[in-house]
Amino acid sequence: MIKLYDHAVSGNCYKVRLALSQLGVAYERINVDIFKGEQNERWFAALNPNKKVPVLIDGDFTMWESNGILLYIGKKFAPNNLYSEDPKDFGAVTQWLFFGKTTIDPALARARFITRFVLKEIQKEKELEALREAGKSALQILNDHLKKHNFLAGSYSIADIGCYAYVHTAEEGEVSLSPFPAVLSWCDRIRSQPRYISMED
Amino acid sequence: MIKLYDHAVSGNCYKVRLALSQLGVAYERINVDIFKGEQNERWFAALNPNKKVPVLIDGDFTMWESNGILLYIGKKFAPNNLYSEDPKDFGAVTQWLFFGKTTIDPALARARFITRFVLKEIQKEKELEALREAGKSALQILNDHLKKHNFLAGSYSIADIGCYAYVHTAEEGEVSLSPFPAVLSWCDRIRSQPRYISMED
Repeated sequence: MIKLYDHAVSGNCYKVRLALSQLGVAYERINVDIFKGEQNERWFAALNPNKKVPVLIDGDFTMWESNGILLYIGKKFAPNNLYSEDPKDFGAVTQWLFFGKTTIDPALARARFITRFVLKEIQKEKELEALREAGKSALQILNDHLKKHNFLAGSYSIADIGCYAYVHTAEEGEVSLSPFPAVLSWCDRIRSQPRYISMED
Repeated sequence: MIKLYDHAVSGNCYKVRLALSQLGVAYERINVDIFKGEQNERWFAALNPNKKVPVLIDGDFTMWESNGILLYIGKKFAPNNLYSEDPKDFGAVTQWLFFGKTTIDPALARARFITRFVLKEIQKEKELEALREAGKSALQILNDHLKKHNFLAGSYSIADIGCYAYVHTAEEGEVSLSPFPAVLSWCDRIRSQPRYISMED
């Protein structure tokens, strides 16, 4: 059975849990206590030298980088469902998955992390403000696209799952989603997909 | 013919040129004058709302995000050459391409950009130092892997091309590659591949 080294509040882990759930793939969930620094221990660094969750183990194959894992899961378990081998559809999926990692997550995931988990006294207000502004720019790009499209890359796919994880938690980083109604509707469409699970499930 | 909206000093554009060259795919190169801010003009934002080069146009298909473009090129032009449809090989390629975008490029590309293109008087020394340290950590992970493997994901692939672009220019950001001999040997192996082109070609 697939093993997922995981943490409950990590959006990067949640992406993978959501994709596995929607595809009906069974897996074992192994908690890594990131607040205690367990990801820095030698046994974990042997799984992922970059010392981050999630890590996925599928038999003799180990991999890390959440959005890469989504592509692996897509290819292995989701032909014509959440993932397509058609070059253009595939290209669109990879475009949005990389947009997630270059533009959405560095802003929104980081703003959420600092807001939720760093003591107010040592938060750097200027840094947080810059992250929130970058998050709004990313949301504007998504909103403009989602005004004209139901999903990011044609039909519902791992691209939506990859971007949704830190978009739907934007307000935990004090970035309001109200100015982005097309993004809010898209979040609703994702939540209505079969076998959807929330981050807390 | 494929069109590539491009800039000569962008490592992200160079990745795409290198992959197209190595696969022998003809393309038209269109310069976007990023130092004049041409990427912010309305015509370019209509191609990429994130206002960055490269953008690839293949017939009626337009896409952006350099490492996503590498996967598209791989799927379309490189079956069993620089790219594999085997799930594990594919997963390994995506892992390293995302590592490039989450960990290598934000450090090394940014350090290079500031060092080369931002006036010394307004460079923030503390920020630069942090970027260089992050770059060294990324290089250490690559070096440890490349001590045991000739290439990042099995045989030579788009994963190597995607990571090479900002690794081989690390010293332009004043991050020395000398402490990372396995990375240097890997760079040499890449340069010896058929139809290799340099960033200046």
